[in-house]
Formats: sequence, structure tokens, C-alpha cells
Amino acid sequence: MSYQIDFEPVGRRVQVTDSVSILQAARDGGVGLAAVCGGVGTCGRCRVQVLSGQVSPPTPAELDLLDADDLAAGYRLACQTEVRSDLKVHVPPASLTAPQRLQVEGRELPVAPAPPVNAHAVRLSAPSRMDIRSDEARLRAALPAPDLPVDVAVLRQMPGVLRANDWAATLGLREGDGVVSIHPPDTALLGLAVDLGTTKIAGYLVELASGQTLATAGVMNPQIAYGEDVMARIGYAMESPAQAAELQRVAVQALSDLARDLCAQVERAPEDVVEAVVVGNTAMHHLFVGLPVRQLGLAPYLPAVSEALDVKARDVGLEIAPGGYVHLLPNIAGFVGADHVAMLLATGIYDADHVVLGLDIGTNTEVALRAGERLITCSTASGPAFEGAHIRDGMRAAAGAIERVQLIGDRVEYQTIGSVPPVGLCGSGILDAIAALRLAGVLDSRGALVSHPRVRRGENGPEFVIVEAAETGHGRDLVLTRRDVGEIQLAKGAMRAGMNILLKEAGLSEDDVDEIVIAGAFGTYIDVRSAVAIGMFPPLPERRFHQVGNAAGMGARMALVSTEQRALAARIARRAEYVELTNVPSFMEEFARAMVLP
Amino acid sequence: MSYQIDFEPVGRRVQVTDSVSILQAARDGGVGLAAVCGGVGTCGRCRVQVLSGQVSPPTPAELDLLDADDLAAGYRLACQTEVRSDLKVHVPPASLTAPQRLQVEGRELPVAPAPPVNAHAVRLSAPSRMDIRSDEARLRAALPAPDLPVDVAVLRQMPGVLRANDWAATLGLREGDGVVSIHPPDTALLGLAVDLGTTKIAGYLVELASGQTLATAGVMNPQIAYGEDVMARIGYAMESPAQAAELQRVAVQALSDLARDLCAQVERAPEDVVEAVVVGNTAMHHLFVGLPVRQLGLAPYLPAVSEALDVKARDVGLEIAPGGYVHLLPNIAGFVGADHVAMLLATGIYDADHVVLGLDIGTNTEVALRAGERLITCSTASGPAFEGAHIRDGMRAAAGAIERVQLIGDRVEYQTIGSVPPVGLCGSGILDAIAALRLAGVLDSRGALVSHPRVRRGENGPEFVIVEAAETGHGRDLVLTRRDVGEIQLAKGAMRAGMNILLKEAGLSEDDVDEIVIAGAFGTYIDVRSAVAIGMFPPLPERRFHQVGNAAGMGARMALVSTEQRALAARIARRAEYVELTNVPSFMEEFARAMVLP
Repeated sequence: MSYQIDFEPVGRRVQVTDSVSILQAARDGGVGLAAVCGGVGTCGRCRVQVLSGQVSPPTPAELDLLDADDLAAGYRLACQTEVRSDLKVHVPPASLTAPQRLQVEGRELPVAPAPPVNAHAVRLSAPSRMDIRSDEARLRAALPAPDLPVDVAVLRQMPGVLRANDWAATLGLREGDGVVSIHPPDTALLGLAVDLGTTKIAGYLVELASGQTLATAGVMNPQIAYGEDVMARIGYAMESPAQAAELQRVAVQALSDLARDLCAQVERAPEDVVEAVVVGNTAMHHLFVGLPVRQLGLAPYLPAVSEALDVKARDVGLEIAPGGYVHLLPNIAGFVGADHVAMLLATGIYDADHVVLGLDIGTNTEVALRAGERLITCSTASGPAFEGAHIRDGMRAAAGAIERVQLIGDRVEYQTIGSVPPVGLCGSGILDAIAALRLAGVLDSRGALVSHPRVRRGENGPEFVIVEAAETGHGRDLVLTRRDVGEIQLAKGAMRAGMNILLKEAGLSEDDVDEIVIAGAFGTYIDVRSAVAIGMFPPLPERRFHQVGNAAGMGARMALVSTEQRALAARIARRAEYVELTNVPSFMEEFARAMVLP
Repeated sequence: MSYQIDFEPVGRRVQVTDSVSILQAARDGGVGLAAVCGGVGTCGRCRVQVLSGQVSPPTPAELDLLDADDLAAGYRLACQTEVRSDLKVHVPPASLTAPQRLQVEGRELPVAPAPPVNAHAVRLSAPSRMDIRSDEARLRAALPAPDLPVDVAVLRQMPGVLRANDWAATLGLREGDGVVSIHPPDTALLGLAVDLGTTKIAGYLVELASGQTLATAGVMNPQIAYGEDVMARIGYAMESPAQAAELQRVAVQALSDLARDLCAQVERAPEDVVEAVVVGNTAMHHLFVGLPVRQLGLAPYLPAVSEALDVKARDVGLEIAPGGYVHLLPNIAGFVGADHVAMLLATGIYDADHVVLGLDIGTNTEVALRAGERLITCSTASGPAFEGAHIRDGMRAAAGAIERVQLIGDRVEYQTIGSVPPVGLCGSGILDAIAALRLAGVLDSRGALVSHPRVRRGENGPEFVIVEAAETGHGRDLVLTRRDVGEIQLAKGAMRAGMNILLKEAGLSEDDVDEIVIAGAFGTYIDVRSAVAIGMFPPLPERRFHQVGNAAGMGARMALVSTEQRALAARIARRAEYVELTNVPSFMEEFARAMVLP
């Protein structure tokens, strides 16, 4: 027999010739399914949802690891389930290996395009000795209104474009701003959406009229060279205007390079990009626009600018169509920025009719609580530990990073990105490791390592050997130290304290939370069970958690193609309440309590 | 006896102790009156108008040189007229020596200020732990409308200005464009008006609210290094985008330097200049804005842009308030530009109810004819000869330039700028010389030099010795050559042909012209009688001619301080008809006829 299996949302179709497991089919088709246990039904990481078709009945292992609701909804472990017909299989993001999760970020937007810039085709009469009107007069006669503003960059390009294309052209018309770009006839106008993170930058090239994402790419934020976190960069910028300008320049250059690379992927030119939306935290927003950050770095941590901002690309130096605009979503507060607004927009949290906690986990973690009619936000300094920084053997999610860890007796099972020998631990691996050690009693509730065959005294105190030198890619032991555990305790403690203070502000308790939405790359990779096990999240049923990937990037794309979504984002920012945690008397107490490992 | 004499418009008050001549009083007070004959009543150049007070009766010399209408209107020769009481005396521009004429250009504008940018004072509440609104939110609450656009440059400066001034500031609010500048409290906003000529640049620093001109200055156009006339510069720009950019850069740099120097004169900063108006011919306009000029250099000589244009100062690189705008008046045609529109605006020619010819004499001379309801324009390539270029001993109007010439028998009488030994001839001196030689029969009607004691054979043909080496400042003979005469014949012939073709277009003859308005620095300096004598102007009564100085600069200032004047300028440009002389079949014939010396 031959069956055909469609994996969604990766969009892979695989032919199998016999009753193989879904895991085998996925491997055959290059779909990177997580399987820490190697496919023996013990880790439970290869969860998939069978949407249609016939499969083998659940095995005892599945009955053990999946609950009745899961099974009823078609959830199965891919390693335990045999193909019995053509299938349609949905792979949740958490079941994919990290690199593949990046690839499958939604290409379709959940909004109908209503872009701020629309194409307007013109065909003009050629000049002659008897018709010596200016190029501008000719062009204006073909505009929807003859007195529309025409950007000076368009005026500069106009004579060349018109003469090279037999007096025909495509114009970019922006609502309220007139003609912002001029192109050869039949040019499809492009947009650029950017999530400008403290550590990473994600870029999306979008066709404005259709809303289709044509290309995506991620790069590191080159400002890292000037300071790892937001406060360090604010400090650097405060030292001199030249240093602030340098931070601005390198970020913009990274975005210009990103735009050029994205365009090259689909054989287009950056001049065809007529609009950009950039979201980032308030400090990234200010540094990108060239706004002063001194007042952001000193109490009471004021943004210079809070409203949405339209600024000409050339006024920040971004190399797209020279008359195009960059739209920046509004900031809520000094440490709750436009990226959080974008996340609230993309996830729909802002008008949920149930109680939702929204988390955008990063170097700073923003927390939002939707409860009744209220939308309350705060920011917590979670630090870069989740991204592998400040961790002895930490690394970012790249080939060779351990992304999944299990402890079975004294044996450590792990899975690396790219299935190559391990060289370090990325954030989700660190979380798994701490959870596993805590569950096994190797860590006590304060985070101290207790006696265990794999625990030894290292240079800087106790450490747990995760992988011995012989097995690693670089020939050194991979360890988790007491200090590493402490870093994660600080990070998760700050986050959890923020959640609890927002709940208290709304008169609610953790049990009242109907849904926890986890956004951000790191949040997408983690095993929610591990996060609950270490007390990062409250102990709620697994199905109340939703990992939504880079929601800020999604929100940026929605705002890129829809002026309605921009208006909505402005309303979200205006409605959002902000709680400054340092003003909350009980914060330190909550923080101390939240650092405990349950 | 002691009398007090007020000289207008120079604004000098002089005390004299006896019945001296007005000329002597002027000399005592440092008022530079022209007097070629040295004050013996033969040259007639020291004409003044006695507005009030008692003076001696007219002498025979005055009865000879002034007509009855002149005398009735109070016109007298300053050298012939004795002071008999306190006097008020008006000195016409043509009676002043050149440097002083520049100084007295009207400081009062003939329009009430209604500037595009107005000052708006704000005083904000300071932030606190309990009021953590952004700087922007604070500012918006103090705006006339909270959703006014605020320029990104203002947002960048805002946190610093507000904190340095106890949360008070002056904002520049521009009609339709929102907040374009931010300053310390009680800053009076300034404007810059510029007449960007092919050869010279004239700048005016104006207080926007009052319309007062605070400072004026003139500099050479540094683009001269890249080509003397418009066509040469277009050619240079066409060779490569880098060369076009270079022309743009040097012109803008000259304007930035001019703005800085003007501000320094009155101890202000260029950042206080929130608006600029720049007028120039179409090529200067395009090169300044960075618009392509290729289509200007090739038939049918099309402007890229014809409408009035508002462009951010930073988008052309002009160093004034970074959010401020440069307004450029509209262009009429490829060779009738915004400077001519400014001249038509300042002189009121556009809606005169009599027949007026308006001339803006320069390297290119624009001609306008107002007749009935029509306003017809053309452009003639008069070349740089009037500015002393292409003339053997020509020079621009500077110290040592001969600006007045008379031939009395075989003797040449002359006057130099600064009353120093002569080193060359400026335009008005050249015109006087040719007129004097023609009247004396030393030149024939074709411009050939006939036999005369001062005519000799020079290196390049016949030449007339104006000043012998011993008398000059550099020890060389100063001569006027046959070629020099030819250059002037070409220049004045082109101009006169343009006038005649416009008159023909309107069905009029020269006698129908009620008024000839002569604008431009050169036009202000010349002796109209000499210009008529060589056939540059039609032989109309002297009082039909009006020399109005730099009317383009005046028009630029009027547009700078009044949006109504801008609207008027736009209407003038739209109404103006344009005649392309190269399309007129009779042009060459008219040109040939107009080259003759009558």
C-alpha cells in the first residue's frame, strides 16, 4: 500500500509505502519532529493532531501521556501511531525542532489587506513643442486629485522613470500623504515588517495588496556590541550624542541590510518597498528613531514619544523607497513598548471575554492581563538568561544546542538542534534540565544542588554534568551550575511576580486565569510542563497555555497591511493601564516568593 | 544758521551750519551721491527730490537738465541746490553710488505679515512618579489640537528643550503641517528669503511675526566654478549624478553659510530660522532641490516641476531648524522661473491696469508684458556681459569699478565705486561708455569704432582708451574693444527682441508701453538714458522707466512672511502665458534689428 500524508502548517506532502509510524513519515519528509526518547513513547514530545484519515489505535504509552480530551481531539504521539490511510496531520509548533519552527511562522495574515499605500497606474501624454507642460503638470493631471502632495524624492525620480517607460508609471499613493513613490508600470508594491528585538531582529517582506508574506529572515541586533540589555544601551547612548547616533546607525543599517536581503530572496529591489512597520520595546523604538533615551534610563522612566509615529524612511536612514514611511506602533510606557502592543494586537488578548495573561518573553518580559474590561500591563527585567546568556554552557538556539532534556534515573536524555553532537544548552534545554533536576530531587526548592552521582564541585561551586566531554562536539563537559540555576530563578521569579501583581491589581488569583498566551521565540520553544515545573508559570492545566510564536512580528505585519489594524493598535495603547512594579510595595516580597522552585 | 537734513530712504540725518549745497551735505553725512562731473552741474546724475523745506531757486544748469514736470515734483540737482531750511530729501536709487544702493534696499515690506509659521508658547506640568505620561503626551495636551503632526526633529529635541527650560517652550506651528520647531521660551521666529541667482545670491533674514528685515547679505554663487551660465551648469549636471549632486551641495552650502552669517549679524542662531523661501530661475531651482535638469537642457526645455513646492530644509540639506520648510515659488517655464514670479509679485505688474513691460536683467533676462488682462512672458539669453564678464576690462560692481562715464570732447569723465583709481568697468559703466561713444559718433550703428584720437588698434582689433595707464589702479590702459561692444549688442539685442515679440503677440507697439519696470541689481545701477541711447530700451520718456532694485528678493521676502502672497504667486504663475522665442519665426529678424545701435 502507498499512503500520502500532508503535514500542516509546514506544508509538506510525504508518500509512504507501508504502515510506518507518523514519526517515520515525518523524518522521511524532512519534517523536524521533536523526539527526545528516540521514538520509544516515553518523552511525549512528538505530539501531533490527526485531522483526517485512519491510524492505529492508541498504545499504552499514549494512554499514559495523553488525556482523554487530547485523544478525543485527535492528538497522538507520532512515534506510536501507524499510518493506515492517507492522512492530514497538524504539527503544533512545540512539537517541531527549533529551526523548523522559525520556518513555519504563519505566512497568511488573519486580516484583510487595507494597506496605507496603494498602487495607482498612470499613462501620460508625451511632451511636444506644442505641449511644454512640466513633467509635474502632466503627472498631476493623472492623479485622483491634482493637488495631492508629491514627495520630493518622487519629483526627483519622475523625469527618469517617465522617460524610461514611455510616460507610464506605477505610483504609490499613501492615505493623507499623497504620492510617496514612483515605479515602472505594473510594479507590485512591497512592505517591510520588522520586530526589532534587543537581541534579535525578525524581518518580513510582504506584498501590500495581497498581504502575502514573500520572505522572512532573522538577524542578530548589532547593537549587542554596545551593551547586552536595554539599560546598558541606554547608558551607552547617554554618554554622548555621537554614541547615541552610532546605536541608531547600526540598527538602521541592519534593517537596510535585512530589507535588501529579503528583496534579493524574491528578486525584487528595496526601492519597491514603500512602507515599513517597526515594532520594538520603547528603548529600541527610541534608539531607532533617534529620540533621546536619557529620560528612559532614569526614574520615572519616561518615554519621549508614546503615540504612533509616521516618519519618512530617509529621516531615519532606512534604505527603502526614499519617499516611503516607517510606521511605529505606539508605546504604552517606558518599558512596555510598541512590540507589546503588536503582540496584543496579533493575539486578540485586548478584547478577550475571558481572563487572559499574555507574556512576551525576552530580555525584558512584558506581561498583560485581560480581565473584564481592563487591560493591565507591566514589564519585568527577566534578563538574557532565557536566551542562553549568563549561563555557563548557555548558547542561543543554533545547531548543536541541547533543546530538550530528560533525566531517567542517572541517565540524561537530550536532543540537539540539527541532531549533531551537543556544544551547549539553549533556553528551552536549560528549562528542561532544571525541571528534570527539580522533579528528581537533585535541586532543592531554593535551587541548591544536592548530592547525586552527576553533581560535582566545579570552579565556581556545585555543578551538574549534563553531557560528558567524550560525547560533546567540543570535548568539554557540559554542565549546569548552581549559578545558572540562580540566573533562571531570578528571571522566572521576576516574570511570575509581575503576573501575580497584575492579578492582585484586578482582584484575581491564579486559578481565575482561563488562558496564558506565550509569545516570543523563546516562549515558543519551551516545554510548558517544564516551565510549570520550575514555577515560571502557575500550575494550570496544559491546555490553558498557548504558544503563539513571534506574535509581535505578526502584529507588525498586520499593522503593515491594514490601516484599520493601526487604528486598533492605537486604541489598545490608549486603553492599556500600566503598573510600574517598582512603585508596588509588595513587589520585593512577591519576587522573593516567586524565585522558589516548587 | 544750522539746518537739519534728513536723507531718505538711507535714513541719515545731517547737521549743516550754513547754506551749503545738498551735495555737500550728503558728502558730510556719508551719503554716496553720484556726481560724475564733480559737482559742476553738467552730468545731471545727482538728481534728488526735495520733499519739504526751503532751497535756492533752480540754476540755468538745472533748467537745462530737468524738465518742468521734474521741477514741479521737487526734483533738483544736489550740486546746484542750496539748503535754506531744515529739509527732507529723497534720494532715488539711481543717484546713489552702487555699494550704497545695496545697503538701502527696502527694509519694510509692502505687505502685512501673515506668516506660514507662528509661535505658540507652551508651559507644561513636570512629570512625577504619579504622572508618568510621555513628554509627547504632555506636549500634545498644550497644543491647539492634540492630534497635530509633530515633526520627528521636534520630537528628538523636545526632551532636552523642555528639561532645560523648566517645561516651557516656544513651538513653531506651520499651517497644515503641525509643529515644525521647538525653542526656548520667548524665541522670536525667523525666516530666510533668498534670491538664488546664476551669479549672485542675495539673502535676507526676516522676523516672521513683524516682517522686519533684520539683516541682508550677498555672496557669489559658488556654482560659477562649474559653469558660468545656466546651460553650462546643466551640461555639467547631465554628465553624471555625482556632478549634479555636487552642484546641489555647493549651492546649499552657500545658503547654509549665508543663513549662519546673517544670524551672526544679529546674534541669533540658524536653528531659530524656521522657514525659508528660495527663488531662482528654473535651472537654479532644480539644481537646488536636486531635481534632474537633463530635460531642461534639451528642446523643448521642460521643467520637471512647475508648481510651488514645500520641502523640508533637511531634505535639501539646508542648515536651519531641522523641521523647518523651504518654500519654492512656482516656475512658469524652463527659462522663466520662480525668481520672475517673485519679481511680478513684488512689482504688482501682474494686475496693472496699464501696459507694462517688466524686465529682470541678469545672465538670463526674463521679460513680462502686462496688457489688458494678459500677462505674457519670455526669456532671453542676455549672457553675463552686463555683469562685466566677457568684457576685456570688465569687472563686477566693486571698489575701483568705473560705474559712470561721460565723453566731453576728447576727454573722458568717469566715477569709480569707492572713489579710488579705476581698475575696470562694471556693467553700468560699460553701458555709459558705449552710449557716450555712440552719441559722439565714435561708434557707428553697427558697433564699429571709427577714427578718433583715443581709438587705436589693439591686439584683437580696434579699441577705445577710456583711462590711460598712469591714471589707473594697476598701471594698464583701460579700454573698450570692438568685441566688447559686440557682446553688449548681442545682450541688449536679445532683450529688445524679446520685448518686441511680446508686444507683437499682444498687438501693441513700443509707443503703447506706459511703463517699463527694470529689476535686478544691474538694472538698478544703469543710467536709463544710456540704455535708451544704445537701443537696449525703446525711446520712451524717462519717467516711464522705473528701476526697482532686487524685486525678486523683495518678492521672496513677501512670500516668506505671507501665505496670501504665496497664493497670489501661484495664481500669477498659472495665469502667465509663455512664449518660447525659438518657436517664433520672426525672432532672428527681430534679434538682428535689435542689435543695431540707434
